[in-house]
Parts: sequence; C-alpha cells; structure tokens
Amino acid sequence: PRKLKDGVTKRVKNVKKFGKDDPRRIIHSMKVGVALTLVSLLYYVRPLYISFGVTGMWAILTVVVVFEFTVGGTLSKGLNRGFATLIAGALGVGAVHLARFFGHQGEPIVLAILVFSLGAAATFSRFFPRIKQRYDYGALIFILTFSLVAISGYRTDEVLIMAYQRLSTILIGGTICILVSIFICPVWAGEDLHKMIANNISKLAKYLEGFEVEYFQPEKISKETNSCVREYKSILTSKSTEDTLANLARWEPGHGRFRLRHPWKKYLKIAGLVRQCAFHFEILNGYVLSNDKAPQEFDSKIQEPITTMSREVGEALKAIAKSIKTMSKDSAQTEKDLLKIIPGVTMASILIEVVNCVEKISEA
Amino acid sequence: PRKLKDGVTKRVKNVKKFGKDDPRRIIHSMKVGVALTLVSLLYYVRPLYISFGVTGMWAILTVVVVFEFTVGGTLSKGLNRGFATLIAGALGVGAVHLARFFGHQGEPIVLAILVFSLGAAATFSRFFPRIKQRYDYGALIFILTFSLVAISGYRTDEVLIMAYQRLSTILIGGTICILVSIFICPVWAGEDLHKMIANNISKLAKYLEGFEVEYFQPEKISKETNSCVREYKSILTSKSTEDTLANLARWEPGHGRFRLRHPWKKYLKIAGLVRQCAFHFEILNGYVLSNDKAPQEFDSKIQEPITTMSREVGEALKAIAKSIKTMSKDSAQTEKDLLKIIPGVTMASILIEVVNCVEKISEA
Repeated sequence: PRKLKDGVTKRVKNVKKFGKDDPRRIIHSMKVGVALTLVSLLYYVRPLYISFGVTGMWAILTVVVVFEFTVGGTLSKGLNRGFATLIAGALGVGAVHLARFFGHQGEPIVLAILVFSLGAAATFSRFFPRIKQRYDYGALIFILTFSLVAISGYRTDEVLIMAYQRLSTILIGGTICILVSIFICPVWAGEDLHKMIANNISKLAKYLEGFEVEYFQPEKISKETNSCVREYKSILTSKSTEDTLANLARWEPGHGRFRLRHPWKKYLKIAGLVRQCAFHFEILNGYVLSNDKAPQEFDSKIQEPITTMSREVGEALKAIAKSIKTMSKDSAQTEKDLLKIIPGVTMASILIEVVNCVEKISEA
Repeated sequence: PRKLKDGVTKRVKNVKKFGKDDPRRIIHSMKVGVALTLVSLLYYVRPLYISFGVTGMWAILTVVVVFEFTVGGTLSKGLNRGFATLIAGALGVGAVHLARFFGHQGEPIVLAILVFSLGAAATFSRFFPRIKQRYDYGALIFILTFSLVAISGYRTDEVLIMAYQRLSTILIGGTICILVSIFICPVWAGEDLHKMIANNISKLAKYLEGFEVEYFQPEKISKETNSCVREYKSILTSKSTEDTLANLARWEPGHGRFRLRHPWKKYLKIAGLVRQCAFHFEILNGYVLSNDKAPQEFDSKIQEPITTMSREVGEALKAIAKSIKTMSKDSAQTEKDLLKIIPGVTMASILIEVVNCVEKISEA
C-alpha cells in the first residue's frame, strides 16, 4: 500500500506540473465545463424544456464537439456546423418531399439512392486539399444531417418541425461555444502562431550563441546549455503545426494587435525561411558533434572570425525576434528586414560549414 | 454561356483526374455510401424499426463519424467510441441515481456539478500527449455520452432503457463500419506507411542519380527530370504523416504480409534517418542551384569520383527500396542493412558537399 501511495502522489504531482506548464489548459477545461453547464439549462429550466424538449440534446452534442482550444478552431467548427446543417437540412426536407411522389413502394428506394449518391459525393469532396483544409468538418456534418433528415423523414410526418427544432438547438449550442470561447480568457490561434515564429527565431539565435562555445570550448558545456542549444531541432518538423495555426487564424476576427485579414500567409513564408536555416544548423550540428576535429593551430586561426560572425548573426536574429514579439515596428517592415537578413544568416552558417569542411580536408 | 460550359467541362475533367490519381478515393466514397445504405435499413425494415425506433439515428451518426479512409482509423475510432460510450453510459446512469437522493431541489445542482467536473477533467486529460495520440476521440465521446445521459436523465425515468438502446445502436453502427472497411477493398494504414518509406528511399536515390547530370551537364536537363530530382523535398516535412500512419497501423489486425504487432515504430526510426539524409540533400541542392561554379579544370577533376560515388550510393538505395517494397528478405534484415548503409549515404553526401565547399574556396 505504501508503494501504491507513492505512485499516486507521484502521478498527481505530474498532472499538477503538466497543468502549470501551460495554465491555459486548465482554463480551457473549465471553459468546457461552463459551456456544458450553460447548455444543460435547456433541460433544467422548465419553460426552456417545454419549448425544446429532447432536441435539447443536439445543443449538448454541439457544445461537446465544436468547442476547441483556440478561438479560430471553435469558430471554424461552429460556422461549418451551422451552415452545413442549414444546407443539408433544406436538401433533406426536399428529398423527403420528392420521394413521396414515388408511392409507398418507391419511397425508400428513392431515399436510399439519394443518400448513397450524396453521401458518396460529399465524402469524395473531402479529399480535395482545398475543401479538406477549410470545410472538412462542414462536409462531414452535411452527410450526417442529410442522412438523418432523409432517412428519419421516412418514418415521421413532421420533418419540417424536426428540422427546425434541430437547427435552432444546434445554433444555440454553437453560439454558446463561440461566446464562451471568445469572452472567457480567449486563446487566439493567430497569437500562438505569431509567438511561435518569434520563438523559433530566438531558438536559431540561441544555437548560434551556443555553437561557438560548444565547438571551441567543449569543456565548458553543462547539460543545461546543451539542451538549450538543441532547441532548434523542434523547428525541423514544425511545419504541420504552423499550417494548422495559420489556417485557424484566418477564421478569427481582429483581436489585440492583429486586424482582421492579418497577412497570416506571410508568417508561413517566414517560417519556411526559418526552417531552411534550421536545416543548415542540423548539418552543422553533425560536424560539431563528430569526433574528428581539425588540428589545434588551425582551430585557433579560425576561432576569431567564426566567433564574431556567429555572435553578430545571433544578435541580429535576437533583435528580429524581439521586434516581432513586441511588434514594435510596423510588422510589414519587420518582415522585410527578416527577408533581407535571412540570406545573410544562411550564408553565414554555410560559411561556418565551409570552414568546417576545410578543416576536415586539411586533416586528411 | 460558352465560357460557362468550358469552365464546367474543365472542372469535371479536373475532378475525374483527381479520382484517377488515386482510385481508392472513389472506392472509399462508395464504401461510405454502402455503409450508410446498410444502416438506413434500421429505418426502412419494419421489424427493425419497431425494436429500435428513433434511436436508429445513433447508428447513422456513428457510421458517418466513425468511417475513416484507413482500416486503422476506422478501428481506432470505432473501438474508442464503443468503449467510451459503455463506460460513460454506466457512469451517467450511476450519476442520475446518485442525484435522486438529493431530492427535487438538489437533483439538478448535483447533476450540474458532476457534469462540470467530469467534463472539465476529461477535457484536461485530452491534453496529455499519450492520451491525445490514441484515445482523443474516446475522451470526446466520454464527455458527450456522460453529459447526455446525466442531463437528459433528469427529465426521463427510463434512463436504463435509453442507455441500453443507444449503446446497442452505436454498436450496430460501429460494427457495420468496421466490417465494410475491412472486407470491401480495405486500405491499410500499415501498408501505406510501408510503401511511403520505400518510396522515400527511392526518391533519395533519384536525387543522387539526377544530381550529377544537373551539376556537370546543366544543358541536358529537361523540365521533367528536374521535377523528378526535386521529389525528395516532400520528405523534409513528411514527419507528421508518418507519425499518424504508424499510430493508426498499430490498431490494425494482421493483414497480407504484416503480422499483428508488426514493429511499426521501427519504420519511424528509418523514416528519421531518411529525413536526415534529405536535409543533407536540401543543403546540397542549394550549392547546385547557386550561380557561382568552380573553374572548369577543377570541375573536370572531381567529376569522376563524384559520379562514381553518387551512382553507387544511388544503386544501393534503390536496392534497399526494392527489397523493402517486395519484402524479399526478412524485413528485420533489410532494416539492419538500411541502418548500416545510411551512415554511408550520409557520409557520401557530406563528402560531395565537402568537395563543393572546396570548389568555393579554391574559387575565392
């Protein structure tokens, strides 16, 4: 039992640490709880229950499924769900009325054909990259709503009332989600993207700073600086996260320092350049870690120029990261600065590499 | 009208081409249609409708939401949904019975507290990487089912019957999905991963083959070879796709040439090595495309060794890709071969790079 207790306390500590690392996670969980409680009023408050009845469950379903971590995510899912339900509901009611013309025998067959063909077509449309990127969830809800309305329309005569009730509860659920997500401690995908890019540039700067120490004074390296220097590695594979954030950011209204229609795509361009730089560092890193070093005398000759170069480029990157973070300059200006400096950084890292290569050769 | 007609025919052609590029997309769309038609029998066939009634709609909902492109995706979602519904349903029924003890006034308050706390806790659990990777959908369904059962339990006395009906229809829907996805032209995530890795290795080989022509005989390059040579670029950012596929592959039963518990994680290791190689190529590519070339005499001196080297490494890579594709050898053996050769490939590409650097220096 003692062991068990230790295990439990350890786990509890882990969970607490995980929450503290990013308190927005805890806040998000609370927000979901609040939205759920709000929507359950549809059941608890008698007058509301009388007007909506069991269709209130669609509002609960919507809240659970639509509520996302970022405002952009919630908006994108909510709007997709709302419009898809509207269109598919209308088409579904139309399909049921159309099928009635074919008599009692023909009705299920016509409905089945319609559900099959529209379901297959909408599924196929989800493969197109453009639709997948922005309207994937909408297409899913379209299939769902159309099938539900068309199929259950066969057994009920109140299709219109049913469709209306469902649509209105889904709208209530979606609105609650969007309001809670925007007005209680919002998490903006755009801001996350902005910070991420700035951080990535700082990581590059950190590597350049650490690089010189690591190569020329390996005895000075502590474990801490080591992990700090390696931070750039996360940039190598961050493309999909950036794409997702930029995609969600486009759904968000203007907030804080960002206007509506902020040029989110340009962030992806910068991110691409930063990643290109990180590729170079990755290669460079291989040389630094390798065991065969150039002779002492050669090393000492190149130490000074390399140190100066990596320091200056590092400083420049830091300045850029800071100006992006604080948005002190016009952001377009910063961007131009970055585009100007990136070739320089790349060049510098290539030069460092070249020097490394020469060492290898001089050794051979 | 003429213009419109042209536009429409063009679009239709595009869609057709898109389908032909990967016919599995069309087949998948058909499969979704088949599953939808099968599940709608719950409404059309009278004896089935009498026993399930309107809860048949949960089966439709399950089919639409659970059916994924790969078998692994469908299985993972189906199993997650089934187990989460079972657990959350049981807890929900328990919560309703517990809340009844608190009288008519206390009941909604107790229920609201339970929904809030369990909803928030489950949402928080979704942030943990391990849970996110495998049980994200299960946690979502847990919140959904628990809230639905607990909240609507306040207004109905037949909670048990409701929970039972819902669970059974969800199981029917899930089973239909899994059967259709396994037995009609299955798409295995594992096989996709396997092919993807083999293809990536071929892409590396193609680059090495094209590299020599591109650098030494730039006049011979056609547009076609050019795009062929650049194929390796997709490897640079393929990590997230590979991770997803490996994750889904773990849910799949044994199929074709793969046993259950095939070492999918090793594929990720190979993929990492292949990507490392692609990073080198990316840097190399920068030199090849740059305008400053070494003097003619130097170029002709290094041409032969570079040609031999890149050809041989290319051949080796091709052989590995082929043996992975056909699984001609024991796959573990191939893997070892690959692990052995990758340092060689990297070394070769570094050497090529070194030669490039030397050129630059000799030029300066």
